[in-house]
Amino acid sequence: MGTRPQVGILMGSDSDWEVMKEAALVLKEFAVPFEMVVTSAHRTPERTHAYATEVEDRGLRVLIVGAGAAAHLAGVVAASTQLPVIGVPLSATGLQGLDALLATVQMPGGIPVATMAIGRAGAKNAALFAIRILGLGDPELRKRLADYRRRMAVEVEAKDAALQSRLAEL
Amino acid sequence: MGTRPQVGILMGSDSDWEVMKEAALVLKEFAVPFEMVVTSAHRTPERTHAYATEVEDRGLRVLIVGAGAAAHLAGVVAASTQLPVIGVPLSATGLQGLDALLATVQMPGGIPVATMAIGRAGAKNAALFAIRILGLGDPELRKRLADYRRRMAVEVEAKDAALQSRLAEL
Amino acid sequence: MGTRPQVGILMGSDSDWEVMKEAALVLKEFAVPFEMVVTSAHRTPERTHAYATEVEDRGLRVLIVGAGAAAHLAGVVAASTQLPVIGVPLSATGLQGLDALLATVQMPGGIPVATMAIGRAGAKNAALFAIRILGLGDPELRKRLADYRRRMAVEVEAKDAALQSRLAEL
Amino acid sequence: MGTRPQVGILMGSDSDWEVMKEAALVLKEFAVPFEMVVTSAHRTPERTHAYATEVEDRGLRVLIVGAGAAAHLAGVVAASTQLPVIGVPLSATGLQGLDALLATVQMPGGIPVATMAIGRAGAKNAALFAIRILGLGDPELRKRLADYRRRMAVEVEAKDAALQSRLAEL
Amino acid sequence: MGTRPQVGILMGSDSDWEVMKEAALVLKEFAVPFEMVVTSAHRTPERTHAYATEVEDRGLRVLIVGAGAAAHLAGVVAASTQLPVIGVPLSATGLQGLDALLATVQMPGGIPVATMAIGRAGAKNAALFAIRILGLGDPELRKRLADYRRRMAVEVEAKDAALQSRLAEL
Amino acid sequence: MGTRPQVGILMGSDSDWEVMKEAALVLKEFAVPFEMVVTSAHRTPERTHAYATEVEDRGLRVLIVGAGAAAHLAGVVAASTQLPVIGVPLSATGLQGLDALLATVQMPGGIPVATMAIGRAGAKNAALFAIRILGLGDPELRKRLADYRRRMAVEVEAKDAALQSRLAEL
Amino acid sequence: MGTRPQVGILMGSDSDWEVMKEAALVLKEFAVPFEMVVTSAHRTPERTHAYATEVEDRGLRVLIVGAGAAAHLAGVVAASTQLPVIGVPLSATGLQGLDALLATVQMPGGIPVATMAIGRAGAKNAALFAIRILGLGDPELRKRLADYRRRMAVEVEAKDAALQSRLAEL
Amino acid sequence: MGTRPQVGILMGSDSDWEVMKEAALVLKEFAVPFEMVVTSAHRTPERTHAYATEVEDRGLRVLIVGAGAAAHLAGVVAASTQLPVIGVPLSATGLQGLDALLATVQMPGGIPVATMAIGRAGAKNAALFAIRILGLGDPELRKRLADYRRRMAVEVEAKDAALQSRLAEL
Repeated sequence: MGTRPQVGILMGSDSDWEVMKEAALVLKEFAVPFEMVVTSAHRTPERTHAYATEVEDRGLRVLIVGAGAAAHLAGVVAASTQLPVIGVPLSATGLQGLDALLATVQMPGGIPVATMAIGRAGAKNAALFAIRILGLGDPELRKRLADYRRRMAVEVEAKDAALQSRLAEL
Repeated sequence: MGTRPQVGILMGSDSDWEVMKEAALVLKEFAVPFEMVVTSAHRTPERTHAYATEVEDRGLRVLIVGAGAAAHLAGVVAASTQLPVIGVPLSATGLQGLDALLATVQMPGGIPVATMAIGRAGAKNAALFAIRILGLGDPELRKRLADYRRRMAVEVEAKDAALQSRLAEL
Repeated sequence: MGTRPQVGILMGSDSDWEVMKEAALVLKEFAVPFEMVVTSAHRTPERTHAYATEVEDRGLRVLIVGAGAAAHLAGVVAASTQLPVIGVPLSATGLQGLDALLATVQMPGGIPVATMAIGRAGAKNAALFAIRILGLGDPELRKRLADYRRRMAVEVEAKDAALQSRLAEL
Repeated sequence: MGTRPQVGILMGSDSDWEVMKEAALVLKEFAVPFEMVVTSAHRTPERTHAYATEVEDRGLRVLIVGAGAAAHLAGVVAASTQLPVIGVPLSATGLQGLDALLATVQMPGGIPVATMAIGRAGAKNAALFAIRILGLGDPELRKRLADYRRRMAVEVEAKDAALQSRLAEL
Repeated sequence: MGTRPQVGILMGSDSDWEVMKEAALVLKEFAVPFEMVVTSAHRTPERTHAYATEVEDRGLRVLIVGAGAAAHLAGVVAASTQLPVIGVPLSATGLQGLDALLATVQMPGGIPVATMAIGRAGAKNAALFAIRILGLGDPELRKRLADYRRRMAVEVEAKDAALQSRLAEL
Repeated sequence: MGTRPQVGILMGSDSDWEVMKEAALVLKEFAVPFEMVVTSAHRTPERTHAYATEVEDRGLRVLIVGAGAAAHLAGVVAASTQLPVIGVPLSATGLQGLDALLATVQMPGGIPVATMAIGRAGAKNAALFAIRILGLGDPELRKRLADYRRRMAVEVEAKDAALQSRLAEL
Repeated sequence: MGTRPQVGILMGSDSDWEVMKEAALVLKEFAVPFEMVVTSAHRTPERTHAYATEVEDRGLRVLIVGAGAAAHLAGVVAASTQLPVIGVPLSATGLQGLDALLATVQMPGGIPVATMAIGRAGAKNAALFAIRILGLGDPELRKRLADYRRRMAVEVEAKDAALQSRLAEL
Repeated sequence: MGTRPQVGILMGSDSDWEVMKEAALVLKEFAVPFEMVVTSAHRTPERTHAYATEVEDRGLRVLIVGAGAAAHLAGVVAASTQLPVIGVPLSATGLQGLDALLATVQMPGGIPVATMAIGRAGAKNAALFAIRILGLGDPELRKRLADYRRRMAVEVEAKDAALQSRLAEL
């Protein structure tokens, strides 16, 4: 990733790494430069605020924010930037991410957070959504996305073939 | 809206109008050309598929999709376009939109839907999120968004003043 | 299964096999010919649409569709066929299948999906429900179903006997 | 309805009429003969059991059962007949039908209940699902269903036209 | 248990034994004669109905019924007897017993089921509640219950002592 | 009610009267003497404790306790008496009684509360359950309960007749 | 309120006034000086941050924060002050405050928010909890609180008297 | 802890120790003297009542109460003391603490319980909230809290550094 990051991936703790790296892997696969930052809405409010207010001037274009429990980080970041902010609710308590989902998605009118599914699927899709956004101004990226979607379709057919084998052994 | 639409607002029924017009009003306020379409994932699958596969070539850049109950429309549209799709879960059953929220947000890895809050706040924020996306390539739109956010802040101060009056009469 | 399939079992990924094979096992036990297909509402929308629109002409009579998370597959299939579609919500996220249940069962008026219990019990019952449908025109199948239900009753009595032994050792 | 009923619609109380008549109206529109019965799993267990054990011999082919709260009626009926039983969870308590949904859909393996959406949409879809089943052996009914689905699609287009008018006045 | 049973413990499957034996252990500890039966609301409706209608004449006085998923057994039994029926919702699905709880407790007016907590605590308390009922006419049983409650209180004090030791090592 | 009360109905506030009177009406219909008391677990803990510890000596035999929100009253009363305590969760907050249900039913092992449905149906059933308990030692009461249940069955048939009229006018 | 405020009541909008004034009324009744401020976590992040960082130096001692939907305000304030922060979840969406409750109470370790009940009861209790805190250093306030609690107990007895009248008329 | 305890930590069973010791560890780290007691709302109501009514006179200033299932302990204690009571809902059933959360937080107006997050995070935050309260009258404690918060912020930066290493290896 030699070039200037286009996407910032934020999380409240490095314990969120295992889930949020799904976003990183997709961005890497698509050769989209990104940065990854640990910052907390509650434990480091100044750090978070500083990041959010400066990130647009630093040239980033989309933010992906993972947070669990009473997940405030995405909303807090969205309040201090005009960039599109994508929220990934993480399962960090016994409530399996339902708390994080509601705390992320139910934003009051005025400050939007684009919320993805809870956990890994959400982290992966956050990156793919960032790519859809960035692709609006980048034909090469759109082409890579079209290839990716074709590969997904082929994969489904491969899985179907595997299923037929299993079925034969039933 | 004389110019070519940049945003498409989709809904499954015109009964969704009352909520989804919140998105239309914001886009109008920001002078972002848009179109609005009734199409159903279940009652008109071909119409929906045709819309989704052609919309990018027609020059639209962001889609906003409102749907209630077992809300499949946003996911179905996202499966057939590369444009960013923003989902607005609508409260259409006794479950108060919780069904629509889960049916919209819990997309499996591969096809993202950027989910907003249930109902009016979500419809309004969907438009604001579309504007954040479009603003990435449009400095004038970014300026309008900055103005909008400043007005929101001023409004909070006005509400605070109103509160002080009420408090004095307590 | 030498003869023409009467039931189609669909699922979004071969990872659903472990649960959906419960349906296959029941159909096999009842000697009802069936086919099993991996197809995704989101990753292979064309493949899914093609399957759904052609399946009736191919002579199948009932479809069983397993899907998890924002489970759209059953509804999408039901939108493009007139055959009875039975949905099996799968537990694919931390929400334990509640998301898939609501996304499957809360279909808006017009396009029905006959929803079964979440997971294995649902997959098994989907096959038994297909057999109830097919049995309407097949006295031999009805007889097999009556035998099956008698065996279930006998099994309960056997379990009762086992319980008495355990109780004696309490 | 001069001819022998093919569908039986059951409900626990005549207070369920307002919702369950949606099923009756659809069956009437499709000219499918049906009967409608009040019987309770808890207040009239013998009546319910007698109905369920005799209904197949009386020539009915599909049962639609509406029930609210701890909705046991559909399961109890399904336990005493081999006909396909379609359950409609009704919203009869402050829990908005979530209790009835879970009490209807989460049937253990062995006795299936094909569950529809909570309330009116579910009642309507129950009839349409019964028609899909009956249509398997009735080409004329299949034709009527195809017409019905075409009208639904046309209706969506009419709603779209209505939406464009509203939009023009925004 | 040489004497005639006063309490009947019912469950739908011997897989419920691990939880329901908590009830048996309490009754044994209190020397209350009981019987335990496997019978299913859905798989053996006649057996269940026969049991429920005859149990009062056989001299039993309280029934404890454990059931999971769409837990209908307690309600079905209560519909065919005048004895007090105590329901124990079991966790038999991914919904952790919430389905069984609602299917047991939300009985419509007319036929009551006295519902206990989900799982082991509920099974234990079902027996203690049966003992409270039987104790109304049995001073000796009331005395044993008073002793039991005193022992519970003493146990809390012992746990407090254990806590102080752990605290000292903190 | 000239004779000594056998049942005590407790509630935290007279605002619970509208729901809890359903229990009173049933007891009156069955000529079971009862008393009704307002006492609060939180606002009058001593009053509640005094009532619970003395009620058995005063000759009452069953307690019915209605409470909403964080409904502690039934559990607190059950902790200080050996009488059977029946809890009625009331809908007193926006959560529609789900909070009261869980706070009443999820009692830990040792102190049982026999929980009924949320609201009116629960209040009515609490009285019917008290009658089942009292009926164990009172053949006359059992006879009245059998009559009541017969009347319920007759009422279902009357409702069925009413339904047939409505159906004829469809 | 001539003297320096000891409690600050914050809310995101003056539409929260109707609920949050319950807190104001209690503080007024107890003669605790307070101030009330509209500020939003999302629309005026700087204003909120400024308030929270300066409030301790201005001499306030407890903060009460009402917020609905994805309720971030209490957590955000607690992150920037060392004063005790009491959160009141408000019902501002169709989810009846469940979203606000989880977004307020599920704070990760490090920054506590003392959460009260959803809505009016919570607003009232927030003030009473602030009074318990302030009472630790203020014997006069403790005395007023003891009086208040005595009055609550007397009120329960008055309600009991009212109940007896209603009961007589049943 | 040689000095007189300022905080009392209560729990219903020593099985709650593993979670509640998080509170003890924080208080120890801040050198706040505390005591820890096992007492149950249901199994030892007198013991609980005695503790709650005497604790203020014994000089304690804040109570932390952990309880699971139908968690009544915090409310019951708060009803018999004027000290601030902090409730920690524990996950003790399959409902993952949701039952305990609602039973703790939804206190009716009059008796507040300051509710923390479910489980460990809640226990830790309960201690930090007690420290915020005690800090109001203790500048040294406030200083320690400021240091603690600074260390939390530094820790976030350390985690960020760790993240950068992981990212480099992706």
